[in-house]
Order: sequence, then structure tokens, then C-alpha cells
Amino acid sequence: MAAEPKKIIIDTDPGIDDAMAILVALQSPEVEVIGLTTIYGNVYTTLATRNALHLLEIAGRTDIPVAEGSHVTITKGSKLRIADFVHGTDGLGNQNFPAPSGNPIEQNAAEFLVEQASLYPGKVTVVALGPLTNIALAIQSDPAFVKNIGQIVVLGGAFSVNGNVNPAAEANIFGDPDAADIVFTSGADVLAVGINVTHQVVLTDSDLDELAKCNGKFAKYLDKILGVYFGYHHDAYSIKGVFLHDPTALLAAVDPSLITYTEGVVRVQTIGITRGLTLFYNKQKRFAEVSEWSDKPSVKVAVTVDAPKVLKLVMERLINS
Amino acid sequence: MAAEPKKIIIDTDPGIDDAMAILVALQSPEVEVIGLTTIYGNVYTTLATRNALHLLEIAGRTDIPVAEGSHVTITKGSKLRIADFVHGTDGLGNQNFPAPSGNPIEQNAAEFLVEQASLYPGKVTVVALGPLTNIALAIQSDPAFVKNIGQIVVLGGAFSVNGNVNPAAEANIFGDPDAADIVFTSGADVLAVGINVTHQVVLTDSDLDELAKCNGKFAKYLDKILGVYFGYHHDAYSIKGVFLHDPTALLAAVDPSLITYTEGVVRVQTIGITRGLTLFYNKQKRFAEVSEWSDKPSVKVAVTVDAPKVLKLVMERLINS
Repeated sequence: MAAEPKKIIIDTDPGIDDAMAILVALQSPEVEVIGLTTIYGNVYTTLATRNALHLLEIAGRTDIPVAEGSHVTITKGSKLRIADFVHGTDGLGNQNFPAPSGNPIEQNAAEFLVEQASLYPGKVTVVALGPLTNIALAIQSDPAFVKNIGQIVVLGGAFSVNGNVNPAAEANIFGDPDAADIVFTSGADVLAVGINVTHQVVLTDSDLDELAKCNGKFAKYLDKILGVYFGYHHDAYSIKGVFLHDPTALLAAVDPSLITYTEGVVRVQTIGITRGLTLFYNKQKRFAEVSEWSDKPSVKVAVTVDAPKVLKLVMERLINS
Repeated sequence: MAAEPKKIIIDTDPGIDDAMAILVALQSPEVEVIGLTTIYGNVYTTLATRNALHLLEIAGRTDIPVAEGSHVTITKGSKLRIADFVHGTDGLGNQNFPAPSGNPIEQNAAEFLVEQASLYPGKVTVVALGPLTNIALAIQSDPAFVKNIGQIVVLGGAFSVNGNVNPAAEANIFGDPDAADIVFTSGADVLAVGINVTHQVVLTDSDLDELAKCNGKFAKYLDKILGVYFGYHHDAYSIKGVFLHDPTALLAAVDPSLITYTEGVVRVQTIGITRGLTLFYNKQKRFAEVSEWSDKPSVKVAVTVDAPKVLKLVMERLINS
């Protein structure tokens, strides 16, 4: 008997690279996508939900439920930062796709996460591709969630490197620093895949050509929406390619051997000029004084990635779709 | 004709490794120590002044003036953090040396710094071995100071590594984060030598044996006071040796070829859990939004050090004293 596929829930703000991650997940026999939950980030939550439903219709997988997530940060007071200049105003490369015919389920994202973790204790992996509000709400609403959930793979953080929103902060953590600090200190099995890792995985212009020329359904779809994302990368980073943030985090959940990680305590700065900074304590030094990192549970932080293999998997699974 | 020695002022909180840096400086023909200014940090400022005078008497260099610095942080409101557990309650390895017979000059540290920079425009290097209050006060009191001062070599910061006070902050920056932010954004020629660099320079147990056995006057003096410092390192870091923080920064001022550096903008977080964090922006990405790093002047941040050569210079100059 083959191993049972790993159940995953993708918490997502589609988003061009979210779309790629979702479509790669649906082409990955190692995992069973049991739901999408939505969040603001690349777009507002309402549009994230619409795009999640749209992507499942494109993939012919309307059997997968979509649970809409929070429209506001966990402290409710923060202005949202929406990265429409990266993904287009529709979040999907300014293609203005027709509205999906499906609807989200009645449960909200946090309720769905709590329920699924409780139904399959230790068996569900959440791949969190946006700000961590929904995950923090699930943690706050059910004390058993951190034990019931298998692993939380967080696409987020900038460990020992500059951020991508400003020099201090990466976009997903910056989107809700308070929620991120709750998740990192929750005691759940958390794996953070930061931009120090995802910036190593680049889909080039010639990779895009290959996607455009092949007969893969998902490849052809992504070729249409990737233009805006390539344009942003050229302007902001002067590279002829795009970072595969979301697909890398997704594949780290699918196949943990694609990355290596270190363990320690992560706290998030929630105020001041470094708001959204992720600060990893490697536990190497014994400090004289008690700190905000003392006695907090450890998490895993990705350090290296087998970038060629990640890229190969992404290409293969999209071309063979 | 030999090149004129570089004029340096050492801003210091002696401190065991401060003592080593000062004695190495006095043995370095490349530089002329034109004054010591004192600051809290390893000890309170009053004791720092006493120890500075004491060290100059040990060295037979009472011709060098000592200007006492600030007793409080630049915002005046912060509780001081004194690292007596690293250096002993007297700051010099609990040796309880007799009081020095000399006195500090009438000018305070900031006044002395401003005057000397003005007397020798572009010719004076400040080697700042403690919190940066005095330097920030000099910057605030004289708009010409940042142009008149040659270079400010700052022993401080933890760039892309954990701090030594807590996971976020290095001790000298943590001692007065507001002052540090003023110095880093002042437009002066600043070179920061952080613990990411100084942790590479270790004086081992056997190096200490060599100092103890030789006939160098300064070597014998330092052998007496280094015990407490070795004990701290063994407990906090599990290493059989000590980090040569202050001598490394001093020698980077004496011979810039001992280090390599990168350039970018450094800001200091002044509040919250990462208070005292130094955040370097490498200017690689063009951000969509204005940030607290935008339009700020660049500084130099040391990246590598020729550790064997630094250690060799320290040993030679102490042994031949």
C-alpha cells in the first residue's frame, strides 16, 4: 500500500505565486489538499476568496472547500498593506477573469482550521502563504489546536537578511506582526521558510518560455498571469526572473528533504521602525539576563534549499498538468 | 620622513578588553593617542574615569588627557546596564588597584571631542568602545563635528547575528540605542565593528599563558586582570578563551587593511523587544514604499577580519612592552 497522502490546508492570499503553489499542490500526489483558507495580503480577503474559488474551478477541483478568513489584523487596528503592485489589482496579473460560480463555506478560516485539526489530530499540515491572522485566531480560539495541528509551514520572515517590504520586514510577517508572534511562540510545530531561502529559488525568463510552449493546462494558465510578477521583479531586484516564494514553502511541506533547517526561538517585533522583523535566537549564548526569548518554545527555521530540485518539481508538475 | 601618526581619541568604559585596547594603542607607533574620553557601560562613568586615569599611570602616559563623559543616556531616562559580571565590580578583574593620583580635565568628553576635531579637521579618529552617548552629544552640540571628525570607529552592533545582551542587541548599542541611531545617521564617516566580526578574534588560554610568562610590562598587568573575563566567557559561551572586542576595533582604526567592510544604511531600534538592534540595509532592493532607511547616509560595516593577524599584533605589542 502506498503511504497515505499528507493532508494540507493552504492559507492563501492569491496572488500570482500563491496560484502557482496551489496548482503545484493539486499536482502533487504526496499531498491531499483538504481546503483553502483565505487572507488579505497580496489582495484584500474578499478578492483572495474569489481568486481561491476561481483557481479551484480552473483546476476542476471545486470539491475542495474554501473558508474565508479574517478581513483585519488580529489587533483589528492596523491599516492593511496590500501588494497589488506585485500581483496586479486583481491579484492574478490583471487578467480580469470572470467571477467564479462557487462560494466559500459557512465556516470561517479559523473555525475550519480548528475543526480539521481536531478531526485528524497530528495529520494536518497548514501551509500559510500570507499574513498569519487566521492561524493566530485558530490558536486563540482552541487551546488544543497547537497539539492537534501536524505542522504549520510559514512562508514568512527574513532571517539575517533584509526584508522585502522595507529593510527590516518581510511582507507576510509585516502584514500582521502580532499574529506572527502568537504563531511563533505558540508551541506548535512551526517551520518558517523565509526570504533568505525563497530568494534562492528563481524561475527565469527561459523557464517561463518553456511553460508557455508546453501543453500543460496549469502551465499555460500561469504563463498568462506571470507577466506582472516578472515586471515587478525586474524593477525591484533587477533580475530576469521571479522568486518562487509560495511554491518553495509548499514543496517544503510536500517534501521536507528539500530544505535544511535550524531550531531556536523566533520573536516578532511589533512596534517601531523594525515592525515585522523576525528575530531568531540560536540558543548558543547563555545570557545573564532574562529576555523576551527566554522560556519560549523553539521553532524550525529553514536555512538551505535544494533550489534546482524545487524548480524542477515546479516545472515538471506544471508541464504535466 | 615617516608618515605622521594618526591622532586617535579612545572613548572607553574600562573594562578589561578596553584596558587591553588602550595598552595596545599606546604600543602602536602608527597612532598617537591624544586623549581618552569616558563613558558608562562595563562600569559607571565615574569608575570608567578612575580606570582610564589608572591605566595611563600604569603605562607612564599621564601626559594624555582624560575627559569625563556622560553619566546618563542621551534621553536621560533610561536605566543604565552595567556589565560588572563580565569585568568585575571594579571593571578591571576585581584587582582593587589603588586610586590614581591624576584627575580628568575640566572639559567634558563631548566638549573635548568637538574641540579636538575642530583643531585637527579630518585628522582625528574616535575609537568608540562603549555606548555612544558622548559621540552623539558631540554631534548634537556642534553641526561641524561630523565634518571635522576624521572617522568614528564604533565597536558595536550585531549584524545578522544574535546580540550579546539578548538575542537582539549588542551591549554597546543596547547601552544607548538613541545615541547610536544619532551616530549612525549623522553623515559622519562611521565604521561599525560588530560582534559578528569581533567574535572571530579569540585570545586562548595558551595565549594567556604566553602573556603571563613573558617580560612585557603590559602583558603581565593584563594577565592579572584577565581571569574574570576568561571566567565569564567560559560560563556564557563555553569557550576556553576570550573575545578581543575592543582590541579588534582599535586595530581596525590603526590598520584598516585588517578588516573588509560593506556599505549601507544602519538604523537602531530604540523601543520594544528588539531595543538596541542594529539593522543594516544593503541597498540591494528598491522598495515600493519610503522607509526609515530611505535617504539616510551610508556607513561602513565590517564584514571580515584577519583574525590571526589581529591576534599576532595584540600579542607582539603586549609582549614587547
